[in-house]
Amino acid sequence: MSDTSNPDNAVKRVAEVISIGDEMTSGARLDTNSQWLSQRLGELGIEVAFHTTVADTLANNIDVFRTAARRVDLVVCTGGLGPTRDDLTREALAEAAGEPLEFRQQAMDHIESIFQNRKRPMSERNRLQAMFPRSSQMIPNPDGTAPGIDITIHPSVASEGDNLGDLSRHPCRVFSLPGVPAEMKPMFDASVAPAIMDMVGGGQVIRSLVMKFFGTGESDMESRLGEMISRDRMPRVGITVSAATISLRITAAGQSVDQCDSMLVDTKAEILTRVSDLYYGDGEQFEQYHAIDSMLQARKESLMVVELGYAAPLGDWFASLGETPAYRGGLSLATKTDLQEIAGADSFDEAILDFKSRFGADWLLLVSEYPQIRDDQIVGQKGCGLPMADVTLLVVSPDGRSQISATGVGGHPKILQSRIGKYAMQFLRRVVGEYRPVPID
Amino acid sequence: MSDTSNPDNAVKRVAEVISIGDEMTSGARLDTNSQWLSQRLGELGIEVAFHTTVADTLANNIDVFRTAARRVDLVVCTGGLGPTRDDLTREALAEAAGEPLEFRQQAMDHIESIFQNRKRPMSERNRLQAMFPRSSQMIPNPDGTAPGIDITIHPSVASEGDNLGDLSRHPCRVFSLPGVPAEMKPMFDASVAPAIMDMVGGGQVIRSLVMKFFGTGESDMESRLGEMISRDRMPRVGITVSAATISLRITAAGQSVDQCDSMLVDTKAEILTRVSDLYYGDGEQFEQYHAIDSMLQARKESLMVVELGYAAPLGDWFASLGETPAYRGGLSLATKTDLQEIAGADSFDEAILDFKSRFGADWLLLVSEYPQIRDDQIVGQKGCGLPMADVTLLVVSPDGRSQISATGVGGHPKILQSRIGKYAMQFLRRVVGEYRPVPID
Repeated sequence: MSDTSNPDNAVKRVAEVISIGDEMTSGARLDTNSQWLSQRLGELGIEVAFHTTVADTLANNIDVFRTAARRVDLVVCTGGLGPTRDDLTREALAEAAGEPLEFRQQAMDHIESIFQNRKRPMSERNRLQAMFPRSSQMIPNPDGTAPGIDITIHPSVASEGDNLGDLSRHPCRVFSLPGVPAEMKPMFDASVAPAIMDMVGGGQVIRSLVMKFFGTGESDMESRLGEMISRDRMPRVGITVSAATISLRITAAGQSVDQCDSMLVDTKAEILTRVSDLYYGDGEQFEQYHAIDSMLQARKESLMVVELGYAAPLGDWFASLGETPAYRGGLSLATKTDLQEIAGADSFDEAILDFKSRFGADWLLLVSEYPQIRDDQIVGQKGCGLPMADVTLLVVSPDGRSQISATGVGGHPKILQSRIGKYAMQFLRRVVGEYRPVPID
Repeated sequence: MSDTSNPDNAVKRVAEVISIGDEMTSGARLDTNSQWLSQRLGELGIEVAFHTTVADTLANNIDVFRTAARRVDLVVCTGGLGPTRDDLTREALAEAAGEPLEFRQQAMDHIESIFQNRKRPMSERNRLQAMFPRSSQMIPNPDGTAPGIDITIHPSVASEGDNLGDLSRHPCRVFSLPGVPAEMKPMFDASVAPAIMDMVGGGQVIRSLVMKFFGTGESDMESRLGEMISRDRMPRVGITVSAATISLRITAAGQSVDQCDSMLVDTKAEILTRVSDLYYGDGEQFEQYHAIDSMLQARKESLMVVELGYAAPLGDWFASLGETPAYRGGLSLATKTDLQEIAGADSFDEAILDFKSRFGADWLLLVSEYPQIRDDQIVGQKGCGLPMADVTLLVVSPDGRSQISATGVGGHPKILQSRIGKYAMQFLRRVVGEYRPVPID
């Protein structure tokens, strides 16, 4: 069924992550387990092809396990192992595997010991948590009552009675864990990850690297990268965009860390031959303000920011750098007139220089001005198109000279202000990079 | 297949929400669209039985649409409508529905106009976004290039070739929207919700109201609301928590706007008898800084904020209010010493009063100080527990007196800084509310 499963390869590699619970299908709670599990599985060399979330209904739970068994080799599922009527995972797994549930004294002993440790009375319902499908193994849960379930569903059983046909030659191994992240995560690390390494043969190493870019759109980036982002390429290069920042994630799979890392280095170099003008650094969490911090620290210089108008993202971003000699502080005001009044200066230029000297900053970056965004633009219901803002960026260098950039910035109102802040940082990086102080005659 | 679909009922009501993208199945990005869509569908009386997330692989995308078509009546899917090679949704939908793709000039005109407005060149690849399955309708996208797709998949077609059998008697209506939330949400509200109302019978009116609260946790809120949050209650009251702000959404369904609105008013009054101490206003986008703006405008007074330490969210939030006489500006600095130096003052108190007078503000709110958050706290990999920060909040009132609140703020590092900002606003609201100027003797 899945074009990613490879019947000629004995190593099983395609997985599905399943979350069980009304609170997620109804939208009351956000499922974060699936993201965490997908990251861990990726690190183990397992490709996650599907996430499924299902409400607490027995027939739908059985359906979801059968669907997974016909399209993937491996399932990690969370939730539905509690003692309440809503907890249907063990029953659904038994049905999907075509097996009865049986009582396990070993599980019961564990559950009773947990209640004794917590000095709380055990409800009769908790006996349910000691019921296991006949062929399954228990997954120990040191931090909670419900042990997990490790069971293999065979495709012939999975398709029984629902006319799905024999679409997969592989049995599907299911690891079922509790939904509480504080129990689920240690169980995955201690028991499920080692079992998966056993399944896939152990040896394969996965390494990845994230490169960050600002200054163009996703489709331009893609056309400049060309065949580098093809799915067949090894290492693979994936694009993601968040609030106008582009991330390229290079993922290499190989036999050793050294082999993977050398592939990463080569691919990074190749990417830089194509889009180095937009590149500012490496790391999922690495932003332009981190790049500016490094740049200024290396030069033993410092910065202050002045933000006029209806946002002040730079002040928050630069403050988040933590303790650094490269950032002095920020000021946010509505208008140039306010700036002049507060400085008690006769002109805008004088006000700017006054603040730069008060803050003891070598560089000053000013954004004039973040536009006012109306509620109907955020809701976007009027179909009025995206707003364009005319923004003036000003950088004052250590010698007191100013450089100005006037630019039109467009985009969705929700990210327009942060996009303006990002343009300002891009301009500052360029000016600092090209800066040559006035020679003293 | 699904035990929740009811063939005897002509009204279709069971839905699946599908998210498309490698960045979610790989765990690189968290899917928040599915939660938002599930909440909206719930408000329209539609039960969401499944969420599915699928990587960018054509065969798997087709499989997911076929699986949905045999088990639900309604699908809302997001993602995969961009112009890149990874964007396979339109092709997968055409395959699942057994139809060819065709070029739509109307869509092309829209795409070209978006690029003209943004003054950017259009890539040839964007032509792909004008391709639609033959029987489908376009869903307008005023905020972006990709129009959505509204198409009905008939079960006989969906099961063709994969031996699934005719498991559903219903055709399945699929609404496909872009993955960018800023485009997806207005498209759902403007086009998809009304189309769903038509599907389920048309006449029913749905009205909802969001009330906002700050200052307690979800479980305390739940226990204070008691049976008001039961699923059977009409109007229904749903809780969501985002970065320590609690939203209660009251949703009333009835025969007329007046009937619904009167139910909303009654339920709101009942909620306020239980949790009025935490309430600060109404509206999904309504934050405490909006409440403070109204409060101060009514008093004809104004505010400035000073943020010390390693964040400055208040400066950005208050600036975003737009043109208001109630906010004068913000200052962000690392330490009290820096504040004193920049003011050229002999003491911290003198520096504060100096800035308050320079900014011409009646009120000053100071946060000292946002903690430095280390990377390993954000990753949280060592299970070292959540950080607690000792924060001092200071409010200077129009008569120059100060009030101080020292508080320990804890929580996940990712939201700790904004939670501190929210505590500061809560403190300011209380002080302003209780303020009586010193009488002149």
